[in-house]
Amino acid sequence: MTSATQLLASIEGVGRDPRRGGFSRHGFDRVELELREWFLAEAERRGLAVRGDRNGNLWAWWGEPGPGAIVTGSHLDSVPGGGAFDGPLGVVSALSAVDMLRERGFTPAKPLAVVVFAEEEGGRFGVPCLGSRLLSGAIDPDTARRLADPDGVTLADAVTAAGLDPARLGRDDDVLATIGTFVELHVEQGRGLVDLGAPVAVASSILAHGRWRFRFTGEGNHAGATLLGDRHDPMVPAAEMVLAARIAAADVEDARATVGRLVPNPGGTNVIASSVDVWLDARAPDDAATRRVLEKIRTMASDAVHREGCVLTVTEESYGDTVHFEPGLRDRIAAALGGIPVLPTGAGHDAGVLAAHVPTAMLFVRNPTGVSHAPEEYAEPADCESGVTALAAVLGQLAG
Amino acid sequence: MTSATQLLASIEGVGRDPRRGGFSRHGFDRVELELREWFLAEAERRGLAVRGDRNGNLWAWWGEPGPGAIVTGSHLDSVPGGGAFDGPLGVVSALSAVDMLRERGFTPAKPLAVVVFAEEEGGRFGVPCLGSRLLSGAIDPDTARRLADPDGVTLADAVTAAGLDPARLGRDDDVLATIGTFVELHVEQGRGLVDLGAPVAVASSILAHGRWRFRFTGEGNHAGATLLGDRHDPMVPAAEMVLAARIAAADVEDARATVGRLVPNPGGTNVIASSVDVWLDARAPDDAATRRVLEKIRTMASDAVHREGCVLTVTEESYGDTVHFEPGLRDRIAAALGGIPVLPTGAGHDAGVLAAHVPTAMLFVRNPTGVSHAPEEYAEPADCESGVTALAAVLGQLAG
Repeated sequence: MTSATQLLASIEGVGRDPRRGGFSRHGFDRVELELREWFLAEAERRGLAVRGDRNGNLWAWWGEPGPGAIVTGSHLDSVPGGGAFDGPLGVVSALSAVDMLRERGFTPAKPLAVVVFAEEEGGRFGVPCLGSRLLSGAIDPDTARRLADPDGVTLADAVTAAGLDPARLGRDDDVLATIGTFVELHVEQGRGLVDLGAPVAVASSILAHGRWRFRFTGEGNHAGATLLGDRHDPMVPAAEMVLAARIAAADVEDARATVGRLVPNPGGTNVIASSVDVWLDARAPDDAATRRVLEKIRTMASDAVHREGCVLTVTEESYGDTVHFEPGLRDRIAAALGGIPVLPTGAGHDAGVLAAHVPTAMLFVRNPTGVSHAPEEYAEPADCESGVTALAAVLGQLAG
Repeated sequence: MTSATQLLASIEGVGRDPRRGGFSRHGFDRVELELREWFLAEAERRGLAVRGDRNGNLWAWWGEPGPGAIVTGSHLDSVPGGGAFDGPLGVVSALSAVDMLRERGFTPAKPLAVVVFAEEEGGRFGVPCLGSRLLSGAIDPDTARRLADPDGVTLADAVTAAGLDPARLGRDDDVLATIGTFVELHVEQGRGLVDLGAPVAVASSILAHGRWRFRFTGEGNHAGATLLGDRHDPMVPAAEMVLAARIAAADVEDARATVGRLVPNPGGTNVIASSVDVWLDARAPDDAATRRVLEKIRTMASDAVHREGCVLTVTEESYGDTVHFEPGLRDRIAAALGGIPVLPTGAGHDAGVLAAHVPTAMLFVRNPTGVSHAPEEYAEPADCESGVTALAAVLGQLAG
């Protein structure tokens, strides 16, 4: 049996980001394609037959593919400069749990698959959970094909380069029909388990979550020769919108709003920007609260835009309502694992997308600092092994 | 004689920026090297012998190089997504003025040179007027060699690739000694000439001007899972600093402060940034006023940093004190051109750097909108020809 930590070590050289620190592994880029090759080799080593689906997700089958399958897995891509665990821990834990079940002589009565979903972070094309959204029909394939990365490469181009047919992207009922239950293991992205002193939890819910692009358009000009009174500088309302995000989120219970990406155009030091793109990530316990946060920010940004003589357009890039994982499955897993804690999360996952279609559950592994989406993201090897043991127990019970 | 407009048309295909609009031509990049080749060909066509100096500036000589030369020219690089005139107009007007003088049968009594300075905008390596600063010793060559572009390529690497010896960068007294008088023609970067109804002016002064990098460091983390109260998000004080720049500049008479470049690291939508770099461009009529603007901004940014539990470091990337062009030369030019207007400017120029070493003057050509450092930058062909006529008259008088 290969441990999750050993498997993670085997990819720790792939996709390091020397500038940002951590890893930059994005959907269908050179690095993610290298990780797919690694996954194919690991699956082959275990005699699991890998099928790629029409949307770029990989499925490694233990037993004949068929309906009612027990599916586990996660993703291999990262945010820009992300950590080693968010995504890969769920994939390596799935492989290691297969090893553990086999060493115990277990043979699944139902088909069992390990899945790798494509572009979960949206780090390249802007839409999170792109692979599972395409598969489940949660994004229109025409919209998806036109998504472009920062270099202007469209998703259609990127999947073509990866050997897929962009015309075949979209909802795949044949694949969906094979999934009986999906269980995703993930590193925790907060300090819930640290506070509880436990290594593993089961998920209760995911916050509602949207991403919007605020484009502030002004008038590009010379930073030295243009009088303050003559300026229509979009950076000014963009900065007010960043502050508005914090104010609006603080006004709504348990909401979060973040600007982590902001791009002035043209971006010269001695140039008043002609436009500024600001991406808002906003989440709250339900749809109404999330929309309330968005509208507060939009109102404050609009006021700032009028003061500066600029123009604002807001585009929704993705939206997912609150996910409540199936309570019966959740309670059965918690009980089978000796009454482990039940925790909500603010982070989105492929499991959240699939929850609208099939019974879905998640396991979280303790994160000693709670830091995620950063190079400092971590999980102790012993906690990772607790996660594999828990996942193997769940898979054994569900597939046995 | 080839007109300035015709010469500009001959380079209008070089360095277009399809993403930003306008042109992106930066020191020692592929595009700027192509423009240098174009300049060599234009000089050769006119029988001017071109010498490159140790710092990457090009000198096209009419007559034997020697002390007391009358030098004119400007630069060919642009800001990112800049206009067609800022820089190239001064070079093409110099070439066209040479044509005009020759057609009149003029032979210079003193050596006359057309110069192209390298990386005037600092669009690649962050320091404006890099070529003239190196030549005149206004920047330490060790500091300069270590300057890096956004891809991490150092100036030392870039000049090596362009065929220069980076060890020989730095003050060049032999070249400085050849310059008797320097006259730079430039598109105006404001609406002074529009308001006065005149096509050409002579410059009186340049504002003091500095560039500083504000680095806000916080704690990278997950945008969904991190509670607001647990955040050390450097984007928040960075936004406050953008607003502080406007407030501080408005407090000081005739000052300007601009943030046109802001880079969050790692820059993911669903990631609280670990750090944000913000570049401040600040200018005011004198040194004390410029420092006052800077200190107000620094104080406001420090307060914001403390509130968010972040850290701020401020690095001066360049600084130039107020330039007053030589009054005698200025008045002589204004009188010789029939009493043209005399205008100050907020924009920096190689002429401003050289003014500390040699008698220097500038001519401005009317800009109908005042917009500069943007694709909309413009000058009417007739005004460009007025500029060439004025420059030829000045060169004829100085070199005759």
